[in-house]
Amino acid sequence: MRYIDLRSDTVTVPTEEMREAMFRAEVGDDVYGDDPTVNRLEEYAARLVGKEAALFVPSGTFGNQLALFVHCKRGDEVLLGDDSHIVQHEVGAASVIAGVQLRTLTSCHGELDPREVEAKIRKEADIHYPDTGLICLENAHSNGKVISLENMEQIHKITRKYHIPIHLDGARLFNAATYLNVEAGEIVQYVDSVMFCLSKGLCAPVGSILAGSKTFIEKARKGRKLLGGGLRQSGFLAAAGLVALEKMIHRLKEDHENALLMGQELAKIPGIKVNIEDIHLNMVFFDMTGTEYDSDKLVKEMLKKGIKINPAEDGIMRFVTNYWVNREDVHYVVDTLKTIINM
Amino acid sequence: MRYIDLRSDTVTVPTEEMREAMFRAEVGDDVYGDDPTVNRLEEYAARLVGKEAALFVPSGTFGNQLALFVHCKRGDEVLLGDDSHIVQHEVGAASVIAGVQLRTLTSCHGELDPREVEAKIRKEADIHYPDTGLICLENAHSNGKVISLENMEQIHKITRKYHIPIHLDGARLFNAATYLNVEAGEIVQYVDSVMFCLSKGLCAPVGSILAGSKTFIEKARKGRKLLGGGLRQSGFLAAAGLVALEKMIHRLKEDHENALLMGQELAKIPGIKVNIEDIHLNMVFFDMTGTEYDSDKLVKEMLKKGIKINPAEDGIMRFVTNYWVNREDVHYVVDTLKTIINM
Amino acid sequence: MRYIDLRSDTVTVPTEEMREAMFRAEVGDDVYGDDPTVNRLEEYAARLVGKEAALFVPSGTFGNQLALFVHCKRGDEVLLGDDSHIVQHEVGAASVIAGVQLRTLTSCHGELDPREVEAKIRKEADIHYPDTGLICLENAHSNGKVISLENMEQIHKITRKYHIPIHLDGARLFNAATYLNVEAGEIVQYVDSVMFCLSKGLCAPVGSILAGSKTFIEKARKGRKLLGGGLRQSGFLAAAGLVALEKMIHRLKEDHENALLMGQELAKIPGIKVNIEDIHLNMVFFDMTGTEYDSDKLVKEMLKKGIKINPAEDGIMRFVTNYWVNREDVHYVVDTLKTIINM
Amino acid sequence: MRYIDLRSDTVTVPTEEMREAMFRAEVGDDVYGDDPTVNRLEEYAARLVGKEAALFVPSGTFGNQLALFVHCKRGDEVLLGDDSHIVQHEVGAASVIAGVQLRTLTSCHGELDPREVEAKIRKEADIHYPDTGLICLENAHSNGKVISLENMEQIHKITRKYHIPIHLDGARLFNAATYLNVEAGEIVQYVDSVMFCLSKGLCAPVGSILAGSKTFIEKARKGRKLLGGGLRQSGFLAAAGLVALEKMIHRLKEDHENALLMGQELAKIPGIKVNIEDIHLNMVFFDMTGTEYDSDKLVKEMLKKGIKINPAEDGIMRFVTNYWVNREDVHYVVDTLKTIINM
Repeated sequence: MRYIDLRSDTVTVPTEEMREAMFRAEVGDDVYGDDPTVNRLEEYAARLVGKEAALFVPSGTFGNQLALFVHCKRGDEVLLGDDSHIVQHEVGAASVIAGVQLRTLTSCHGELDPREVEAKIRKEADIHYPDTGLICLENAHSNGKVISLENMEQIHKITRKYHIPIHLDGARLFNAATYLNVEAGEIVQYVDSVMFCLSKGLCAPVGSILAGSKTFIEKARKGRKLLGGGLRQSGFLAAAGLVALEKMIHRLKEDHENALLMGQELAKIPGIKVNIEDIHLNMVFFDMTGTEYDSDKLVKEMLKKGIKINPAEDGIMRFVTNYWVNREDVHYVVDTLKTIINM
Repeated sequence: MRYIDLRSDTVTVPTEEMREAMFRAEVGDDVYGDDPTVNRLEEYAARLVGKEAALFVPSGTFGNQLALFVHCKRGDEVLLGDDSHIVQHEVGAASVIAGVQLRTLTSCHGELDPREVEAKIRKEADIHYPDTGLICLENAHSNGKVISLENMEQIHKITRKYHIPIHLDGARLFNAATYLNVEAGEIVQYVDSVMFCLSKGLCAPVGSILAGSKTFIEKARKGRKLLGGGLRQSGFLAAAGLVALEKMIHRLKEDHENALLMGQELAKIPGIKVNIEDIHLNMVFFDMTGTEYDSDKLVKEMLKKGIKINPAEDGIMRFVTNYWVNREDVHYVVDTLKTIINM
Repeated sequence: MRYIDLRSDTVTVPTEEMREAMFRAEVGDDVYGDDPTVNRLEEYAARLVGKEAALFVPSGTFGNQLALFVHCKRGDEVLLGDDSHIVQHEVGAASVIAGVQLRTLTSCHGELDPREVEAKIRKEADIHYPDTGLICLENAHSNGKVISLENMEQIHKITRKYHIPIHLDGARLFNAATYLNVEAGEIVQYVDSVMFCLSKGLCAPVGSILAGSKTFIEKARKGRKLLGGGLRQSGFLAAAGLVALEKMIHRLKEDHENALLMGQELAKIPGIKVNIEDIHLNMVFFDMTGTEYDSDKLVKEMLKKGIKINPAEDGIMRFVTNYWVNREDVHYVVDTLKTIINM
Repeated sequence: MRYIDLRSDTVTVPTEEMREAMFRAEVGDDVYGDDPTVNRLEEYAARLVGKEAALFVPSGTFGNQLALFVHCKRGDEVLLGDDSHIVQHEVGAASVIAGVQLRTLTSCHGELDPREVEAKIRKEADIHYPDTGLICLENAHSNGKVISLENMEQIHKITRKYHIPIHLDGARLFNAATYLNVEAGEIVQYVDSVMFCLSKGLCAPVGSILAGSKTFIEKARKGRKLLGGGLRQSGFLAAAGLVALEKMIHRLKEDHENALLMGQELAKIPGIKVNIEDIHLNMVFFDMTGTEYDSDKLVKEMLKKGIKINPAEDGIMRFVTNYWVNREDVHYVVDTLKTIINM
């Protein structure tokens, strides 16, 4: 049975073209720097976002944590939004691996208030203060919103004054660029390092990229080994990653359009509330409490109809479109949901 | 020259009685458990706050960090106010020693919103989540305010539901008790462990107490050794600490009254703003920007007149009363300040 | 040009059968537990070594460090041979991730003296002592030797007395089993957890297995996420891994025979010393200082003839055979070396 | 009842002169740098051992661990003797606080083999290697022996070649200097930092000194705050410490002579073995298994006669002389022991 899987874009399986690229991949031992496909991916990725160098890493969490580890010395303070993925969904890793103190700021859908950022930077060499080692931003945010270039520029300007680097969790960087209708480089210009995923909307099976200056990536390469991310013939994964970057970015707008359509159709159902203007990416968040239909039951009923969804979090449902969900699927999903809750 | 030192209550030197107690102190090797004065202090301190056991530690920061270390396993998340001493003034130690992830909540003069606390507790065993290992409160707060017993009770109730311990940074616990007009134990009943200082307003030269259950203190004793806080003949410090607990607590209200008086007198000076109702303890915060007198210059001019004060932080001056500042000193300080800014 | 690569068995590229298995692999999101191929691999691997459960991890270093992280609490002491991979070649990761104190023992080609192990276990609950949290063994050892079942059994017996777990770095576990002419399970019975690699002699491109009890693997699964090793559609790598375990183990003896042959032939060259009885695996160590030929020059000259080798370490050369080096290659290598050093 | 306490020299209580110095001590808030007695001690201590600067710390373990923390970045490798105090008796702190990888070398009564040191220094920037961050020596060694200036000089020379600092655990530095009949500075010239205790043989109640370059001590001052060792009116402890350094060093030779006498007298008892030439300091180690008298029983019987001793470790008893043990006590101890085991 073919399922329509709306749980996340992490569930995307690779395209046929990726499978073929993997099959034919020329590989070598990447710990020796001998894997030509990995080398090619790293060069391509660096150029794509306008950084000097890039490094293939096994996952987004790996890339973020490696960035913290390389930018900071242990005990440094890191400023970032309270709702960011690093705080919420990375298992407390920042306190284990980098050994840094997270200082969580108020986040407005991912945007930080530049004044709060400036106020919380440790400016003096007081014996009671840790050093502010890093600011982390997240764009697109895992809550489905894109933060503006203006906000990034303002924060960037502040950090230059205090010589503090910025790391961007860009797990869905190209979704953000698609929404903003700019090249990824225009976003990345405001940060010192960026992590972005080859999986998720781009459909590669495994892997992310960490990009930054040459010096930064050189240290990250050794840090990657320390963290157990030095792989051998990873050219297979890199081959799929290259297809992801070369062929899949331009089509993310289809996922966005499908999500928007889905949101608009869901909004028509009595009892369902959708903030259409909040649909920036391939994610539709909606509140179905008005329907008085039990969300856990919905998960089960939808599954019977071939649709995989996650249960509500704090009363909010999230449907995520991706390469394997087409326009007809969108209509099928909405119709199915309508039928179920009216039964 | 005798100075009136208003920089902090940490500057208090011991009383004559403390010096004599130290001189006569019976001591032994406390690593062997052989110091009778330390043993007596630990028993007295535990009883005083209604806990099973207590441990002498070299400083307040030491006691707080030891509590984090013992309560949590590395990688746990700790919920606490963004303006708490552990976040602000302990050099990032929580990320170095306990290796925990601080999750900073909005603090209203030290009070946390019980709903935010409950919302941020990690309830499910999600593979993406660290465990919530601890909640930290601070009472009195280092910003000079006391948090209410109601607030503590509400948060206590929530944590019982989720089996999460609470640690109280009670560096100025007895100032809080004085303000609330209760025994310290009434505050401490809502927490699993508490650190309070023997120095500061209580005038002992060195040392703090960590109190909690027997099991907790047993682990803390070994953790104290690991952190280099296993002292030898620390009975000298304990002797002064015993005087602090036996004789100095009841007189803290004089410091509070002096601070209130000072606040009231300062409020009469044109251009100076004081929130009288915010004077809970021995600390007066005031804004003198209305006088257009330079605060750094004030520091220098007051020093010439025998008064030590700290420069303004974010435009706010803080004067702290203590055992060595009497009622006449209060008037002398206000008069001197008046004279200086009118010159 | 086809190279004969003797630098390590980590350079092995996958077989055609592996490429095809990867091409056809059925995959899913393994963070959701949805990847059928990964699930199949983990079950197969656990059964193969006689453990309750197994986990796919990105690399051998990742698996070892994850084992330390899960077995130990921070500050525990770990006993292991001074020449072990964890000490020598894992970038100090044990002090960063698991935060444990390595206590290095004298190693006789990987074998630890059971009496030294017992002597160094911390037996009492002394306030000065860390807990002994783990013993690590390595078999086959990265120096090319296999440690005996007797040695493992003796150490196992001691650890049971003190309730201390053993972890086995079995990066080349199946080479050890081949040499000892036993099933891998006979080795693994003496340890609580084992890591073994799918790459190296078994030719899979990426990945290792960590196996142990159900409880251990459950914790390791969460720890893997924390360390950034939670992958998405890793079924591609698992597909190759399954071929490695099903088809490649039985043929490791060919690599061993080729190494032995190479050792015997090299020993005939005047000035070259080989300890034939030390050739347990697919590795030949030899001393060519007697030839007075510069080893760095040899690296360059061999490369011109299509043979990749590493430079000498402390005067000792290491040639490693693997799936892609056949019997004729062995003769070609020896003849080429002979020609070069006689020129 | 007055006890003769031979368990350790850590049990020494302060002299009358120390108590008086403490009583009269001029103190201030040392976190503000305002304690004149602490300042005087730190200057005196630095000059005494020929270093630029010094810092008062609460204990020897604190000073050692602070040195590791300041010298090393997390993940560095530290070379030191397997029997050193940092490995054996500091609760695994190095893995918790500094986060470094201990690499334990063979120690011959504290002396390291310079060739092993050189061999184990990580010389290349290999991606698999941690950096060698520090060498630790211990003189006098806690096993009672003094390491030679020649050995220290040789190791010093090697570390200069590789730009690796040396830290000296000199808990009993002045005992070593007494044995070698040199000024402490002659020992300390071979190391970059040194920790020595004011307690133990020197009789101060609490505290140790960490000394090194100005830059090193500046960092250590902040690190001390992080670790909770920033004390307030620590001038009381410093006052006793000054007496310790000014008056107590020259008389350590009496403790050594008493230990030697005790050793010689014990050696005369049938069944007791003492290596007289191993008595470098105030410690006598002896093997009484030849007497067939139970050592645990001896502890109890001696206590009845007013003598405190520790039970045997691995069959070896240790008696430690100190300021409070005079020549007559030595004879009383030996006579009492003789009487007991002959009963």
